[in-house]
Amino acid sequence: MKILIVNGPNLNALGQREKDIYGTDTLEDLENQCISYGASNGIEVLVYQSNIEGEIINYLYKMKDIVNYIIINPGALTHYGYSLRDCISAIENDVLEVHLSNIDNREEFRKTSVITPVACGKISGLGKEGYILAINYFILKNEK
Amino acid sequence: MKILIVNGPNLNALGQREKDIYGTDTLEDLENQCISYGASNGIEVLVYQSNIEGEIINYLYKMKDIVNYIIINPGALTHYGYSLRDCISAIENDVLEVHLSNIDNREEFRKTSVITPVACGKISGLGKEGYILAINYFILKNEK
Amino acid sequence: MKILIVNGPNLNALGQREKDIYGTDTLEDLENQCISYGASNGIEVLVYQSNIEGEIINYLYKMKDIVNYIIINPGALTHYGYSLRDCISAIENDVLEVHLSNIDNREEFRKTSVITPVACGKISGLGKEGYILAINYFILKNEK
Amino acid sequence: MKILIVNGPNLNALGQREKDIYGTDTLEDLENQCISYGASNGIEVLVYQSNIEGEIINYLYKMKDIVNYIIINPGALTHYGYSLRDCISAIENDVLEVHLSNIDNREEFRKTSVITPVACGKISGLGKEGYILAINYFILKNEK
Amino acid sequence: MKILIVNGPNLNALGQREKDIYGTDTLEDLENQCISYGASNGIEVLVYQSNIEGEIINYLYKMKDIVNYIIINPGALTHYGYSLRDCISAIENDVLEVHLSNIDNREEFRKTSVITPVACGKISGLGKEGYILAINYFILKNEK
Amino acid sequence: MKILIVNGPNLNALGQREKDIYGTDTLEDLENQCISYGASNGIEVLVYQSNIEGEIINYLYKMKDIVNYIIINPGALTHYGYSLRDCISAIENDVLEVHLSNIDNREEFRKTSVITPVACGKISGLGKEGYILAINYFILKNEK
Amino acid sequence: MKILIVNGPNLNALGQREKDIYGTDTLEDLENQCISYGASNGIEVLVYQSNIEGEIINYLYKMKDIVNYIIINPGALTHYGYSLRDCISAIENDVLEVHLSNIDNREEFRKTSVITPVACGKISGLGKEGYILAINYFILKNEK
Amino acid sequence: MKILIVNGPNLNALGQREKDIYGTDTLEDLENQCISYGASNGIEVLVYQSNIEGEIINYLYKMKDIVNYIIINPGALTHYGYSLRDCISAIENDVLEVHLSNIDNREEFRKTSVITPVACGKISGLGKEGYILAINYFILKNEK
Amino acid sequence: MKILIVNGPNLNALGQREKDIYGTDTLEDLENQCISYGASNGIEVLVYQSNIEGEIINYLYKMKDIVNYIIINPGALTHYGYSLRDCISAIENDVLEVHLSNIDNREEFRKTSVITPVACGKISGLGKEGYILAINYFILKNEK
Amino acid sequence: MKILIVNGPNLNALGQREKDIYGTDTLEDLENQCISYGASNGIEVLVYQSNIEGEIINYLYKMKDIVNYIIINPGALTHYGYSLRDCISAIENDVLEVHLSNIDNREEFRKTSVITPVACGKISGLGKEGYILAINYFILKNEK
Amino acid sequence: MKILIVNGPNLNALGQREKDIYGTDTLEDLENQCISYGASNGIEVLVYQSNIEGEIINYLYKMKDIVNYIIINPGALTHYGYSLRDCISAIENDVLEVHLSNIDNREEFRKTSVITPVACGKISGLGKEGYILAINYFILKNEK
Amino acid sequence: MKILIVNGPNLNALGQREKDIYGTDTLEDLENQCISYGASNGIEVLVYQSNIEGEIINYLYKMKDIVNYIIINPGALTHYGYSLRDCISAIENDVLEVHLSNIDNREEFRKTSVITPVACGKISGLGKEGYILAINYFILKNEK
Repeated sequence: MKILIVNGPNLNALGQREKDIYGTDTLEDLENQCISYGASNGIEVLVYQSNIEGEIINYLYKMKDIVNYIIINPGALTHYGYSLRDCISAIENDVLEVHLSNIDNREEFRKTSVITPVACGKISGLGKEGYILAINYFILKNEK
Repeated sequence: MKILIVNGPNLNALGQREKDIYGTDTLEDLENQCISYGASNGIEVLVYQSNIEGEIINYLYKMKDIVNYIIINPGALTHYGYSLRDCISAIENDVLEVHLSNIDNREEFRKTSVITPVACGKISGLGKEGYILAINYFILKNEK
Repeated sequence: MKILIVNGPNLNALGQREKDIYGTDTLEDLENQCISYGASNGIEVLVYQSNIEGEIINYLYKMKDIVNYIIINPGALTHYGYSLRDCISAIENDVLEVHLSNIDNREEFRKTSVITPVACGKISGLGKEGYILAINYFILKNEK
Repeated sequence: MKILIVNGPNLNALGQREKDIYGTDTLEDLENQCISYGASNGIEVLVYQSNIEGEIINYLYKMKDIVNYIIINPGALTHYGYSLRDCISAIENDVLEVHLSNIDNREEFRKTSVITPVACGKISGLGKEGYILAINYFILKNEK
Repeated sequence: MKILIVNGPNLNALGQREKDIYGTDTLEDLENQCISYGASNGIEVLVYQSNIEGEIINYLYKMKDIVNYIIINPGALTHYGYSLRDCISAIENDVLEVHLSNIDNREEFRKTSVITPVACGKISGLGKEGYILAINYFILKNEK
Repeated sequence: MKILIVNGPNLNALGQREKDIYGTDTLEDLENQCISYGASNGIEVLVYQSNIEGEIINYLYKMKDIVNYIIINPGALTHYGYSLRDCISAIENDVLEVHLSNIDNREEFRKTSVITPVACGKISGLGKEGYILAINYFILKNEK
Repeated sequence: MKILIVNGPNLNALGQREKDIYGTDTLEDLENQCISYGASNGIEVLVYQSNIEGEIINYLYKMKDIVNYIIINPGALTHYGYSLRDCISAIENDVLEVHLSNIDNREEFRKTSVITPVACGKISGLGKEGYILAINYFILKNEK
Repeated sequence: MKILIVNGPNLNALGQREKDIYGTDTLEDLENQCISYGASNGIEVLVYQSNIEGEIINYLYKMKDIVNYIIINPGALTHYGYSLRDCISAIENDVLEVHLSNIDNREEFRKTSVITPVACGKISGLGKEGYILAINYFILKNEK
Repeated sequence: MKILIVNGPNLNALGQREKDIYGTDTLEDLENQCISYGASNGIEVLVYQSNIEGEIINYLYKMKDIVNYIIINPGALTHYGYSLRDCISAIENDVLEVHLSNIDNREEFRKTSVITPVACGKISGLGKEGYILAINYFILKNEK
Repeated sequence: MKILIVNGPNLNALGQREKDIYGTDTLEDLENQCISYGASNGIEVLVYQSNIEGEIINYLYKMKDIVNYIIINPGALTHYGYSLRDCISAIENDVLEVHLSNIDNREEFRKTSVITPVACGKISGLGKEGYILAINYFILKNEK
Repeated sequence: MKILIVNGPNLNALGQREKDIYGTDTLEDLENQCISYGASNGIEVLVYQSNIEGEIINYLYKMKDIVNYIIINPGALTHYGYSLRDCISAIENDVLEVHLSNIDNREEFRKTSVITPVACGKISGLGKEGYILAINYFILKNEK
Repeated sequence: MKILIVNGPNLNALGQREKDIYGTDTLEDLENQCISYGASNGIEVLVYQSNIEGEIINYLYKMKDIVNYIIINPGALTHYGYSLRDCISAIENDVLEVHLSNIDNREEFRKTSVITPVACGKISGLGKEGYILAINYFILKNEK
């Protein structure tokens, strides 16, 4: 089983800003933890990050037949990335939306997700553990 | 460690309606799976269900010092249960919001959650696995 | 054939307030008229009233397999009783919504019914006759 | 006692479209059932249909002193027929609004009725039986 | 100089409803007063009334080159008669909008006029005197 | 009979700006035309202008028992002068609202008048003639 | 193959107003061009215009079994003609919506079309060529 | 004279949360202060608290003829308790709405009170003194 | 202790309009009652009224270091007096907002107070007693 | 004559998803059909697709002086691509907007096009024929 | 060259409130810095402050022909001063809007400026330097 | 001191469109003027332009530790570039928003800036001088 983890705009800056909220782990640290967790469960975890919406779309089309499941943290594209939305709808993989913070609990515009309606589910507010739980979900789902 | 799972209005009907979506497991089945999963991880899982908002509030005040963490599926109270919201805010336990279905993907009124701003996080759309992941989250959190 | 008539919050006060609009008949009078009308048509009419949303839900689950049809005047729950709505949707009985007054013709908030989308139909503004017509409807429907 | 039944735009097409919902009865069938039902209760039922808002208004002014009560299904004029609304308000007959389908349960624009505030009541979602119940209402009302 | 006075839906019922507001003068009385007032100022006043939007439009196209100025009370078409609006915009006569009552002071929907943006001006709330003032305006305008 | 004409903020600049629309007549010219017109009809016309909302209110309280009728062009206070509105409502004189231009035909915010609901009527879009017609209205009204 | 072209309110005035935008061709010219274009492709093109919504509806019911396809320019009915909408939905012909101008590019109210959701497609902003293209579309469609 | 003080959902938690805002006095302390203050003014003060909307309604119907005046802090029901609203409207006692904090100064949803339109007045933001002032008000009112 | 009572626009007309609601006491009567009540509690009560927003602001800056507390009834400035709001925020005295009537219970625009968010509390709907209670509040507050 | 056809995000996936709606033709098939149709009419058709908004903008600036006309299907950029909008406005070529499906007939957000106000026209809902008609339009336009 | 700097309501309190944000400089300090900066560039800077909207308007009409350019910080009038807006539009001087703080970054109501559409430009969030830059702008503009 | 000037989508087209508004200077001209102005004040000015949101984000992360201050004209990204917003918030440089035109004075959608809340200030409507003033601001700020 292969799982792709996609991080959207500004997640490259993880661990370098608002450290009181997110801690000092960088994106690389987070990705490595996911890869390790996957490996210890016999799953190959692939990782990708881009700040350009269209590049993420290009990558998703390229990988859609290679991976089984996709975990995506769309960053701010959550709120206006209608092209990304159409892409998630077009590829027919199960896509699980993850957010580090509780996005309903911040600025007004963050309450609207254009991605959720085409995702199979959402995990938000649970920090980096949210990614581990997402991997876990696909393991549980696969077992059924 | 003790975790309380609270299910709100109409979750007593689980397994008896819309079986194509939710399967044939009843609320009791779901609760037993959570209790077993907790037990196998050395955690006591307590369960509660009520169709009356104020009864849930009464129960939360009674249990708040007895349990460590709370998992809540507020049912339709998600959308208008401001009293429940104030209660979750008043008790200072971590409360994790869980929904069986992807509520952003249904009727318009289901897109607004008055509970999320006072919850520590949200898991939605992942079916009964969402409850297991929620227990899992508190285990991961406790380990840190 | 058994028909259950459910009256929601504040309908217990019927005949005691705004007598110029509703007349001096109490809820008991109204219920008795419905029972008599039913009896004279060979139908058993059951009646129930509660001011607590969750109690109405509990009662509906208890009665859903015992009665054939349900007539409900949700009182002010019409406008915010999303839990009651989900309950009506879950039990699979035909539920007919009745209002004594023409609710579209009063305060702004009374124009929105969260119950109507899950009811089979609505009768409003016809006073106590609305309940008789509702019973009548189920007789006509049954005859077909 | 004379009752006028007015059907608005597109009700001439009844029985010719969406037969799975409305059945195969035509407008003429419906009107005849109402006339028969009236006759068997000693009431003269008159019928009228037009697709032109202003023609309905002209007809209502012509008939207002001839009939006792009016039953109207305004079709789509329900949502924008402000001229019809002013006419119903001007003639001082009791006018009862009837809809075949549960209009609150369809497209967003169908949730607003500009007619209801000037009608004495509303029956919706009960199919052709709605017309029979409306006649019934005026009989009950007349008896008091 | 020729002035056309057009009255829209329901103004045929003038003097027959809400007499405490509008008095007992009928539409014919109002029209005769306008014709007399015009005659005594050397102006020919023509009058027209219809309850059908499209008939008013047809009439305006027929008369646009025959009359100099137009006074219109669109009745409820004021609030949704976009076809009438386009017609007033297409014929290039000065069209003055008149309302008997102060329409900003009644139901919410009466606050929006789709006609005003294409009219040269508006007189409202001044009763039948509003029509006389409108004729007066065109006399003053003509004198300049 | 005494009529007071009140002009609100920026009407002091009449004839000095947007001359293509309003012509070159100054406020003084307009006031003099009204005074002359009044005089020739045996009416005393008083005039007042201020750019300060509260000063207009003070003046209205001072004059309310001295004059019979009031004509007011509130300028931009039309859209937010709730204090002026309460004043017009408190003094019990008939107050007629006049606007030089067709205010429904300009910026969005100009479509809302907070004054109209407490005025006896409105004349807009008819330029300086609007003031003459307003005086005329009170003459006609007085004759009845 | 027979195609019916229906033009709604005010299109009778084509070529007589706003000539800088629409040119000097009249409705008759436009209709003749369509008829010729059809004839040269072996298609019978029928034409109809009315300023009365209900008359258009009556005509559509009369013609629906006689013609294969319908091209409609609803004029201002585009924005509020819910009765026309229901009619287009009821007759089961393919109906193609055409507008001479780019209606999304004008007043705010013109951005909403109540017709589009029941039309098979829309061509706007392409002037009289839009009608020719619409005929062309049905030819292409028929060839498949 | 008897005054009933009703506290709604979550006021049982007073003094146990947000102590920096509300101090350390519990609900019991507050109630005792009100009872003492009443006693020293010759008034019997009764107290009640519930987290269940319908229970408060039941209690109000039971007490309405026993007490002269009612002071209510509806807690979060302020914002959605339409059933409570109808109850306050139905019992004909003067009901005074009290809030500890300045509710217009917090989250957006707290700005709307569905209770205020049926209350005789409101005191908010004055902490526990608000209750004493409310008792005071009924004393002043009674003296007149 | 010195308390300043500020009355905004139109409160000078108290006792002269809507006497059925407010009684026949004038502003001077009300002010004298407040001064007497203050005197009998050893407090100096100062009073001020103006119809000009900016004058009230000027006066508040002048008095802010002279008085301990401020009671303000902003009249219609409640709904749009953002400058007054900034002034209340700038002076750091406790300012208590008072309204004679229940402003949430009147026209829609009166439901929004731009002053409340910067006031320490609000008393509304309690008539002239509201001022006495406000003085009372500052006495209670001072005693603590 | 040269015409450029630009396809936006996700149109690369054509023929691979939702085949029941769009058929099995790929983007390449569609582009080849357009090129052939152009060639048979003596027109050079150029094609371009990108999933990145800014790349499309770069390409449009590069090509604007090389091609005569542009046909664009902006995909989901239709709803939020304000940068693309400004680009279309800046280059002064005629740009015709094309959509395969009837976008007004899908999710709410698809009803708003930010592109239409700067396009010369729009064709939607006509499938791949829409592109052919668009080419046809520029031929007709060129002939005039 | 003469530049007038106008400060609106509450700017007289500068340096006396929220000193952590604005520093301890008073309005007089700010004005003196502007005068000095102007003097050293050969420009006469005039200053004015008022808390009364209408007084500012009076002053602007008085000075409009005396000064070349105007810099205005309208304080809270920014959000509702439609009379000031009309005045700025009427005088034909270039008026530059300045705000000390980033007003889009505070309460919701501060995001709307009714002044900006009639100003030549806006500088906000740059503290007192914003005034110096504004003077600078007019120098640069004058040099061209 | 190093200042980076970033220009967003379509600013590459400067001087080539709408020359009556922006003049004939190209982006290169503007950038050179800024570089010269910086040089003459001992400041190194760097310039960057891209039409791709994500590329701008990439560039900002690359340069954030190299430059002291940033001036950005986000072009149309101002209205929907939430990813850019998060980036500006993440890098901790002072970022000053500049617009050539007065964006509050154009289409409705241009009134909302998603960038302003995370910028330190905004200069708009002052043409190319806005950039010079922005550089000036950082010089003034640095001097303090």
